[in-house]
Amino acid sequence: MMSLRTVLMLLTISTTLHMQAQSSGPYVRIARLVIDSAQLKAYQAALKEEIAAAVKAEPGVLRMYAVYDKVHPDQVTVFETYASREAYDQHIQTPHFKKYKAGTLSMVRSLELADVVPIIFEAKKDQ
Amino acid sequence: MMSLRTVLMLLTISTTLHMQAQSSGPYVRIARLVIDSAQLKAYQAALKEEIAAAVKAEPGVLRMYAVYDKVHPDQVTVFETYASREAYDQHIQTPHFKKYKAGTLSMVRSLELADVVPIIFEAKKDQ
Repeated sequence: MMSLRTVLMLLTISTTLHMQAQSSGPYVRIARLVIDSAQLKAYQAALKEEIAAAVKAEPGVLRMYAVYDKVHPDQVTVFETYASREAYDQHIQTPHFKKYKAGTLSMVRSLELADVVPIIFEAKKDQ
Repeated sequence: MMSLRTVLMLLTISTTLHMQAQSSGPYVRIARLVIDSAQLKAYQAALKEEIAAAVKAEPGVLRMYAVYDKVHPDQVTVFETYASREAYDQHIQTPHFKKYKAGTLSMVRSLELADVVPIIFEAKKDQ
């Protein structure tokens, strides 16, 4: 049988590994969407509301930048930074995200999600 | 003939219009690049150096976020925010940009630049 000491040691190792997996650094993603041209204003309003709520209410939602293409305004890109993969998993369970998802279902023609790895993030201090 | 007063008035209007054009708000762009797979590390190093120098030295370079795709590491995306179109025009005349451009010419397989319009930019205060 394992001694209590061995059990405690194994528990400690397991907990440490789990914490390391959770704190694996920021989770960064680029979402590319094509929006129904007739519903651009409504879509932008819904996206604004969702992003403002998420960054305000969720400690793990660090940064969300949404833009549309100048030449093709139906092409929307969202640059998303979460504290971790777990923070993202929590994000998609929030009421504001679910409201956005249900409310924009008929507006989104296509959605492409790409996990990305930071090379460098630089910004002026007040940005 | 125009009076001096008319000339001065027209000059004032012209200057005002020019200043309005210059201060038309941030100029935001997404650059999508495909990099020679054999030179990814060298390319990333050159991009890091260029971005760090630009954000540090140029008042008009507000924000630059560079990432690569997790599944296709040769696909690089740079999310760029300048204070204005003029700030961008100045940026590409700087020694650090010219060094980057010349040094990475053989590494870049394709480059696609898209002018974009902000919908919403939200970030935690310390981000």
